[in-house]
Amino acid sequence: MPRAVAGPEIERLIQLLARLPGLGPRSARRAALHLIKKRETLMQPLAAAFDDALGKIVTCRVCGNIDVRDPCTVCTDAEREVGTLIVVADVSDLWALERAGTIRAKYHVLGGVLSPLDGIGPDDLNLSGLVQRVHQDEVREVILALGATVDAQTTAHYITDLLRGRDVAVTRLAHGVPVGGELDYLDEGTLSAAMRARTPL
Amino acid sequence: MPRAVAGPEIERLIQLLARLPGLGPRSARRAALHLIKKRETLMQPLAAAFDDALGKIVTCRVCGNIDVRDPCTVCTDAEREVGTLIVVADVSDLWALERAGTIRAKYHVLGGVLSPLDGIGPDDLNLSGLVQRVHQDEVREVILALGATVDAQTTAHYITDLLRGRDVAVTRLAHGVPVGGELDYLDEGTLSAAMRARTPL
Repeated sequence: MPRAVAGPEIERLIQLLARLPGLGPRSARRAALHLIKKRETLMQPLAAAFDDALGKIVTCRVCGNIDVRDPCTVCTDAEREVGTLIVVADVSDLWALERAGTIRAKYHVLGGVLSPLDGIGPDDLNLSGLVQRVHQDEVREVILALGATVDAQTTAHYITDLLRGRDVAVTRLAHGVPVGGELDYLDEGTLSAAMRARTPL
Repeated sequence: MPRAVAGPEIERLIQLLARLPGLGPRSARRAALHLIKKRETLMQPLAAAFDDALGKIVTCRVCGNIDVRDPCTVCTDAEREVGTLIVVADVSDLWALERAGTIRAKYHVLGGVLSPLDGIGPDDLNLSGLVQRVHQDEVREVILALGATVDAQTTAHYITDLLRGRDVAVTRLAHGVPVGGELDYLDEGTLSAAMRARTPL
């Protein structure tokens, strides 16, 4: 926003909104104006939702999920298989897998992946909690749902080593052609992985 | 967000964020997670900015601008020309013109444009205020900065008629080739307007 067309309060609102992922300076202005125009129907409820979240949201001490209770809704869900643990890097991955809805197991959120370049080592991830859960909860399968980047794969290998010797199967998500994907647009790595992991029809 | 991975508070936060312009369901989830992770450095300041805005922001009774004071910062700015009034449809247009920074005049925000199809008639716009200001404030020029849609042009003609007979020049923004624009990509209407309004070099 330009200088001197309104008080600093509106400028500050725009600056804060611009820090949300997906909003740039221009869309933050549009969002701010939208919020100001819909003060009663949008800004007020959102302010209340923020206050609610600020007062209530906690990180689950068992799995690292974000929720308003600890242990979280997933950890206390009696209908989920207890023998299977899905390891994800981030809460957003947990949400994504739940949207897919293939499997109703419990999760373990690492809080990132190993990344030597960014200075993220094993101590920065929730790994001791994972080993402890595998030990205590009689987990039979650990599914590593960690993406296909170099850092994610390094993390997957590290966890596999960590769990070696324990009576637990460690699996990872399949690599291959994404549903709806055209071969033409896929990189060589994906195509090679899909070819190697080809399945009988 | 899927069912039963967290309390309804997070779901509600996502739903409200998804109502911001520029954010869809997916980016609203990302924004919610970002806000939750940055509770202290982003969500808390944003909640405070909302409370601040909710308590303070008002519509200027003189020009229709949005600000924390009434009359607004623009109307009380002594360095702006008083003889020129720029008529805009929306506060966002006022902001856009101030960013361009070509002219330091006062504004008049109509709150929309005439739109028979949407049921927006002259009584729904801040037109009586405009006539009154032209009369009282010794305005010499009214610049109609109203866009080039059919509705905006209808509104421009309506205002021109309204101010006819008064000692005031009514002008509108030039139509033409946008700066950086390629002729190839421009529509016929813009090209015709630019050709008709050609200027000597």
